[in-house]
Amino acid sequence: MSRSTKEALSELELGKQTLSEISVLKFGGTSVKSIARIQHVAELVKERLKTGKVLVVVSAMGDTTDYLLKLAHQIAKTPNQRELDSLLSTGEHISITLLSMMLNALDVSARSVTAYQLGIFTENVHSKARIVDIQFDNLARAFENCDALVVAGFQGVTANGDITTLGRGGSDTTAVALAAAAGAQYCDIFTDVDGIYTSDPNVIKNARLLDRISYGEVVEMARMGAQVIHPRAVELARQYGVILRVRNTFKPEHQGTQIGGGADMEIYRSVSGVAVDKDNACVAIMDVPDQPGIAAQIVSALAKKNIVIDMIMQAFHPTAGLNNITFTVASTDLAQTNTILEELKLKMGAKEVLADEDIAKVSLIGAGMAGQPDIAAKLFTTLGDAKINIKMITSSEMKITCVVARGEADKAAKMLHDAFQLDEAAAK
Amino acid sequence: MSRSTKEALSELELGKQTLSEISVLKFGGTSVKSIARIQHVAELVKERLKTGKVLVVVSAMGDTTDYLLKLAHQIAKTPNQRELDSLLSTGEHISITLLSMMLNALDVSARSVTAYQLGIFTENVHSKARIVDIQFDNLARAFENCDALVVAGFQGVTANGDITTLGRGGSDTTAVALAAAAGAQYCDIFTDVDGIYTSDPNVIKNARLLDRISYGEVVEMARMGAQVIHPRAVELARQYGVILRVRNTFKPEHQGTQIGGGADMEIYRSVSGVAVDKDNACVAIMDVPDQPGIAAQIVSALAKKNIVIDMIMQAFHPTAGLNNITFTVASTDLAQTNTILEELKLKMGAKEVLADEDIAKVSLIGAGMAGQPDIAAKLFTTLGDAKINIKMITSSEMKITCVVARGEADKAAKMLHDAFQLDEAAAK
Repeated sequence: MSRSTKEALSELELGKQTLSEISVLKFGGTSVKSIARIQHVAELVKERLKTGKVLVVVSAMGDTTDYLLKLAHQIAKTPNQRELDSLLSTGEHISITLLSMMLNALDVSARSVTAYQLGIFTENVHSKARIVDIQFDNLARAFENCDALVVAGFQGVTANGDITTLGRGGSDTTAVALAAAAGAQYCDIFTDVDGIYTSDPNVIKNARLLDRISYGEVVEMARMGAQVIHPRAVELARQYGVILRVRNTFKPEHQGTQIGGGADMEIYRSVSGVAVDKDNACVAIMDVPDQPGIAAQIVSALAKKNIVIDMIMQAFHPTAGLNNITFTVASTDLAQTNTILEELKLKMGAKEVLADEDIAKVSLIGAGMAGQPDIAAKLFTTLGDAKINIKMITSSEMKITCVVARGEADKAAKMLHDAFQLDEAAAK
Repeated sequence: MSRSTKEALSELELGKQTLSEISVLKFGGTSVKSIARIQHVAELVKERLKTGKVLVVVSAMGDTTDYLLKLAHQIAKTPNQRELDSLLSTGEHISITLLSMMLNALDVSARSVTAYQLGIFTENVHSKARIVDIQFDNLARAFENCDALVVAGFQGVTANGDITTLGRGGSDTTAVALAAAAGAQYCDIFTDVDGIYTSDPNVIKNARLLDRISYGEVVEMARMGAQVIHPRAVELARQYGVILRVRNTFKPEHQGTQIGGGADMEIYRSVSGVAVDKDNACVAIMDVPDQPGIAAQIVSALAKKNIVIDMIMQAFHPTAGLNNITFTVASTDLAQTNTILEELKLKMGAKEVLADEDIAKVSLIGAGMAGQPDIAAKLFTTLGDAKINIKMITSSEMKITCVVARGEADKAAKMLHDAFQLDEAAAK
C-alpha cells in the first residue's frame, strides 16, 4: 500500500446530513487554464444547475502552481513551508474567483470560497495535510446565497488559522471530501482524458475505455489510475460511499468511467486492466543475518528520507541463517536508496547491496481475481510462451505484479491484454 | 475636501493598547516588484529588527494588480465585485508570502498574514471598504510566534467572511491603521521617491525636499502629496496621532519627510509648497433661477455618477435673481459632467452650460497661512507682475488655489516658488 492511500484511510470523519440534489464537479488545471476554458467550464456548470445546486471544485489555472513554486525557489532551496503553502493557495484562489465571475457574467448566482472561508479544516502539517473536518452547517450556509458554490481545491486551514495544502491529489481529495460532507451521491471528476482504460491506449492500441470499475481496482492500477484520479481521493470516496465519475471536460456528452457504486459490479469480470510502470528500480540487500526487525530497520531508514518502497520481499536461506531483502523504489530515489543501504549493510553485517534499473512492473488488475488460480496460471503461461523472463512476482487480492526487463514490458502488457480479451466488453 | 478624505474621517475606532517598541514599515508595489527587490526589503526589515519587533505591510508585486484586473475584464466589463475583490487580494497574498519566505531564508522569524488571517475587519462594501476594526489581541497573538509580521495591505474581511479591498491608497491605510492598532508612534512609508518636495522637482528645478510637514499640508497638496501617500491614510494618521515618515526604499539612509508630530512644527513657516494640477476642467451653469437647494441638486446628480467636484463657487446677480454656479472636475469626467448639466439646465431653466478645458490649478500650501493677508497679496502681485491671468480663486485655511491657463501653470508655479523662497530651508 502506498503512503498516500494509507493516509487517506484516516482522513476526515463526518456526520450524515445531506444537501438535497446537489451536484459536485471537480475541474483540473488544464480545464481552467485560460479564460476561454473557464467559460467552457462555466457553461457546463450552468447546464448542470437544471438539476439542482452545484458545488464546483477547481485547481489552479494551468501552470500557475509551477510558476509560484519557481518564485519560491528563487528565494530558497527549501522555502519556509508555512509560507510556501500560503503562497501556493493563491493559485486556486485566483481560479475560483475567475470561474465565479464568469458564472455571474452568465447570470448564475455564484460565489467563490477559499478553504479558509468555507472552513476546510486540516491537521497542522504543511505541504501534505489531511482534511479533518468540514462542517455541514458551513456548507449549507454557503449555499444560502447562491446556486453555484465555487470552492478552491488543494488547500485547507488549520485550527490556528494557518493555510495548508493537501499535497498530491489535493483537489480530487477536496472534491470527494466535500461530496461526502454534503451527502452527495456522485462526485464528477472532469479531466482531459475520456476515463479509465483497460491499459495505456498509447501503447496498447486496442485498450478499451471502462464503463465501470471498483475503487480497489483503480487504486491497484497505481500510476495508470492515478493519472486520472489520485488514489487518496479514491480511498476517501470508498470510505464514504461517494460514486466517482471520471469524465472528459471537452466531451461532456460522454459518460466516462464510473468508479464504485454497487458490490455486484466488483465481480462482473475477473480482470479489468493491465498496467505498466517503467519508473522503478529494484534493490536488494544480500545475506543479512537473520534478526527480528531487520525489514523494519530498512523501511524506517528509507521512510525518514520520504522514500516509498514497493514490492518488498524477504527470502530466507534456511541453511546459513541469512536473509535477502528485495524491493522496488522509484528510479528517482535509487541513488539515495543505495547510499542508505550501504550504511545499513555495514551496520547489519550484510554481504552486499545490488541494484537493477533495467526493470518494469507489469500488473494484472481485477476485483474478481482473488481465489481464481487459473488467472495466475494464464498470466505466467502467456509470458512464458512469449519467452519473457519474470524477475519478481507479488500479488494482492486484486493484483498480480510481475517485474520484467524494461524493454519487454510493453510486449508483455500487449500479450496479457490479448490473452484476457480486455478489448471486449465483459459479458454481464 | 475630496471624497476619500471625508470617508477616512470615520474610519476605524480603536482602544489604547501598545505593543512596545514596534516598528511599522510599509513598502509599495515597486519596492517588491522582483525577487531581488524583495531581498532588499527583507534586509531593511532585518536591520530594523535590532530595535524591536517589526510589522511590515506590503502591496502587490509591480504590475500584479493590473494583470489580475485584465484577467477579470476579459470575463466581464463590470465583473462581480465580491469576486473581483477576492481575486485582487491574491496580489498582496503572493507578496507577503514571498517576503516572509525571504525573511525566513535570512534567519528571521517571520510570518505572513492576510487580512483574513489577522482580522482586519471592514464594512461590507466592495472595492472601497473602510476599515472598522483591528483587535489589539489578534495583533499581539500574531506576534507571539515571530519577530517580523508581514501583513497584506489593501485588503480586508467583512464580519460575514467576505474578502474586501480598500480602494485607492489601500496599503497606506492598512499600514497606518495597524500602526494605530499597535500603538506605534511612527509609520514608515517606503516608496520610490525621496519624500515630499516644495513643488514638483521635474518642473521646478530648485524644488526642495521637506524635512517635515503637517498632516493638513500634505492633504492640501492634493495630487502632489497623494503621489507619495494617500490623503485617506494621512487623515487616519492625524486622527490617531501616528507620525508618518516617507522614505525612499532605495536610499534607506535618507531621513525623507516626516508628516505630523508636534503642533509647533505646523507654524514654523507660512508657506510649504506650490502644487500644480493640470488634469482638471472648469464647468459653469449660467443664469440658474435663484432657488434653495440648487447647488445640492447639481452636486447630488454628479455624485451619483461618482464624479468628484472641486472649487465650487456660486456668484449671484442681485438684479436678475439668477446664479452662476462654477466648479472644476477631473478632465476625464468632463464629458459625463456636461451631459448631466445639460439635463439639469432644462430642468432648472438655466441659460447655458459652459466648459473650459484650458485650465490648471496652481496652489500655494502652508499651515501658517491662515490670518496672514500679506501671503495672498504677494501671491496675486507675483502672478500679476508676470502677466498671468487668474480665472478663479478659492482659499482654505492652508491653501490658496488659482486657476490659470494651462500653458502658464508651470511658469506661475516657478514664480511663486521663487517669490516665497521655498528653495531655502526655513529659519526655525
